[in-house]
Amino acid sequence: MPNGAVAPLFDLGRELGVGFNLGYAEIVREGNRKRRFNTSILVDPAGRIAGKYRKVHLPGHDNHEPDWPFQHLEKAYFEPGDLGFPVFDAYDGRVGMCICNDRRWPETYRVMGLKGLDHLQNFHNLSPCRPAPTRTGPGCWGSRGGREEGCDLIGQSCIIAPTGEIVAMCTTLGDEVVVVVADCDLDRCGEIQRNIFNLALHRQPQHYGIITEVPD
Amino acid sequence: MPNGAVAPLFDLGRELGVGFNLGYAEIVREGNRKRRFNTSILVDPAGRIAGKYRKVHLPGHDNHEPDWPFQHLEKAYFEPGDLGFPVFDAYDGRVGMCICNDRRWPETYRVMGLKGLDHLQNFHNLSPCRPAPTRTGPGCWGSRGGREEGCDLIGQSCIIAPTGEIVAMCTTLGDEVVVVVADCDLDRCGEIQRNIFNLALHRQPQHYGIITEVPD
Repeated sequence: MPNGAVAPLFDLGRELGVGFNLGYAEIVREGNRKRRFNTSILVDPAGRIAGKYRKVHLPGHDNHEPDWPFQHLEKAYFEPGDLGFPVFDAYDGRVGMCICNDRRWPETYRVMGLKGLDHLQNFHNLSPCRPAPTRTGPGCWGSRGGREEGCDLIGQSCIIAPTGEIVAMCTTLGDEVVVVVADCDLDRCGEIQRNIFNLALHRQPQHYGIITEVPD
Repeated sequence: MPNGAVAPLFDLGRELGVGFNLGYAEIVREGNRKRRFNTSILVDPAGRIAGKYRKVHLPGHDNHEPDWPFQHLEKAYFEPGDLGFPVFDAYDGRVGMCICNDRRWPETYRVMGLKGLDHLQNFHNLSPCRPAPTRTGPGCWGSRGGREEGCDLIGQSCIIAPTGEIVAMCTTLGDEVVVVVADCDLDRCGEIQRNIFNLALHRQPQHYGIITEVPD
């Protein structure tokens, strides 16, 4: 990245001084092995790749299950990301990414929070993104609208404050270009990180052991 | 427990066949050492103590901090619970408890969920209780109303479905006896536990290690 297909996007971002988050299906060839990940990269306003993430929490199933009205075969198409939940120094703060179903798993936010996250970029539908306890910074959340494969998509791209409040949200469900803008004061995260969600002061990790046990 | 002060409550519960959750400040004497915990017990409809929990996540601070408009000295009065997050077979299901600030920490729900929780009893204010990702069962949430020490309390005792929807909630903020009732079909938890929040299928604990690291 950038390949020929997305080079114009990188060029325009650099020209306008606007960074972006780009999701794509990544193919990795290792000898004869072909690996596929659901990947996103974070591009800074200078057009440099500031960070890369491979989706950890794949929903759905890995084979055709005829009893379901829809086939959600993400576990068949991809393997779980192997990069963990990295955070990156970018945009005058520390930024992490997650993708879609990752938002449902509070481990996602907690791991990044423990790495000093200020800011979260992520994808697709917001409700579980809001609870402050799982986040320590603001988030922006991109979600598709329009109609794909006979399904109406849900929209609701938004920007969420560290308190969990939605400060800006798209209002249409149409398949169109929408822009949501809000000022994000990353210093506000500190109020929360120093007090009610001071992770070092209030967490009791000696009681959390079962969360990281890996089954045989 | 039951001591003389609460024996009438146990007697009435047994007479009516109604179980309850009772919170109290617990003193434990170990030799010359006096330990204090913020504790709750779960009493079954026959008046037997089905489970006990000591609050793990204490908010506030442990000394007087004059810059704050309120002193929240829970860390001074109590020590963190030493029982972890136990679950109990009671009420035709598997039940856990948490108290107040515990609700803000998704580790609370996740640890109990991994132990096969069907049902959650807890205390004080609901918003972080709702996100389904952190829970795998319904919850009931008791919250104080009225006025104490010059503060208006927030009420909102409620019962929450495994989907995160509030199915019943008190509507007054007054200091009065309020009753909230809903049918809880614990079997509905299975739909969620077998699919979108199938913990064994979808979690990736190899990437969560930092969550349980205990600082030196």
